Amino acid sequence: MTQQKDTFTWHNTVLTAEQRAEAKGQRPAVIWFTGLSASGKSTLANALEHALFERGHHTFLLDGDNVRHGLNKDLDLSPEGRQENIRRIGEVAKLFADAGLIVVTAFISPYRSDRRMVRELLKPGEFVEVHVHAPLEVCEKRDPKGLYAKARAGEIKGFTGIDAPYEVPEHAELVIDTSKNDVATCIQTLLDYLREKNILLR
Amino acid sequence: MTQQKDTFTWHNTVLTAEQRAEAKGQRPAVIWFTGLSASGKSTLANALEHALFERGHHTFLLDGDNVRHGLNKDLDLSPEGRQENIRRIGEVAKLFADAGLIVVTAFISPYRSDRRMVRELLKPGEFVEVHVHAPLEVCEKRDPKGLYAKARAGEIKGFTGIDAPYEVPEHAELVIDTSKNDVATCIQTLLDYLREKNILLR
Repeated sequence: MTQQKDTFTWHNTVLTAEQRAEAKGQRPAVIWFTGLSASGKSTLANALEHALFERGHHTFLLDGDNVRHGLNKDLDLSPEGRQENIRRIGEVAKLFADAGLIVVTAFISPYRSDRRMVRELLKPGEFVEVHVHAPLEVCEKRDPKGLYAKARAGEIKGFTGIDAPYEVPEHAELVIDTSKNDVATCIQTLLDYLREKNILLR
Repeated sequence: MTQQKDTFTWHNTVLTAEQRAEAKGQRPAVIWFTGLSASGKSTLANALEHALFERGHHTFLLDGDNVRHGLNKDLDLSPEGRQENIRRIGEVAKLFADAGLIVVTAFISPYRSDRRMVRELLKPGEFVEVHVHAPLEVCEKRDPKGLYAKARAGEIKGFTGIDAPYEVPEHAELVIDTSKNDVATCIQTLLDYLREKNILLR
């Protein structure tokens, strides 16, 4: 084989998060819903993603459904497994933010240290911690998957709010009480916040 | 606290990958560049991402720079660590495809079994395996990071192409020879392919 002169070069500039996001009319952000099981995280996350999508924004939703059985399927429910679960979700959320997207996540994420770890992975202003609050008794009454009943019966161990702690956020960007507001009101609160913070640019 | 009737419900439909992608004028895909060190994977991946961005497409680049020190920083270079590295990258690429993006990846990924694992994670047609080929002597001569020299000197063990195998793709969607084509020609080949396969809809 005759060897040509090797001319395989290119000005190797890397596309930035800002370029990717600007083209989408938004600033990247991670909207991190935290709260008890059945507090309304998934409902709000889905509704918010729809609301943003309808307004032409570029979003992605990370939740148990698409993470637990894929990326994190090798992790168990030990303290180390739970911490690594949140660490990976944080790292993936960061990649999505780098892609210019608004990421919405819905995980109980009961520990302050884990949530702080994710906050510190991201750029200032990118992490929007939303405490989805409803009193334990309301969550337990909703109990759509019967998990509280199982936890009370001792069939599930280490269930947040029953025999494992939920560390209430001390500096959440938003607190949303789903026992006192309907979904539409909560979504309006969220959209107002995102506009005020210039995460939504249109 | 007086308890209102719990009205916190919503038609919990989930936004689909198709909805997200259609709004972006594209079909999701994972363009998986595989090849020897210094074969030109990163150069092509960056140039392709720029070309797509300039045409208004929505992309993301996964490579060692943004994965190795973040999501996969806990992994070592053992066979198990390398396999888990590719598995996680595959799972993250799948999430990005679900977000409607065109993901471009640049990893040596020397083993057929690992690349097949990623292909099988994705929907039919989503995985575009691109063998970035240049003869070993060309790669070794380029050696931008001096890695081949170190591997030849025995300072790096298990280096692909020197003392570890590279399993040439048998059914790659595209083979691109970077020792015979310049970057612009390679990118044109890639764009033509993506249009032909209706991954780019405009």
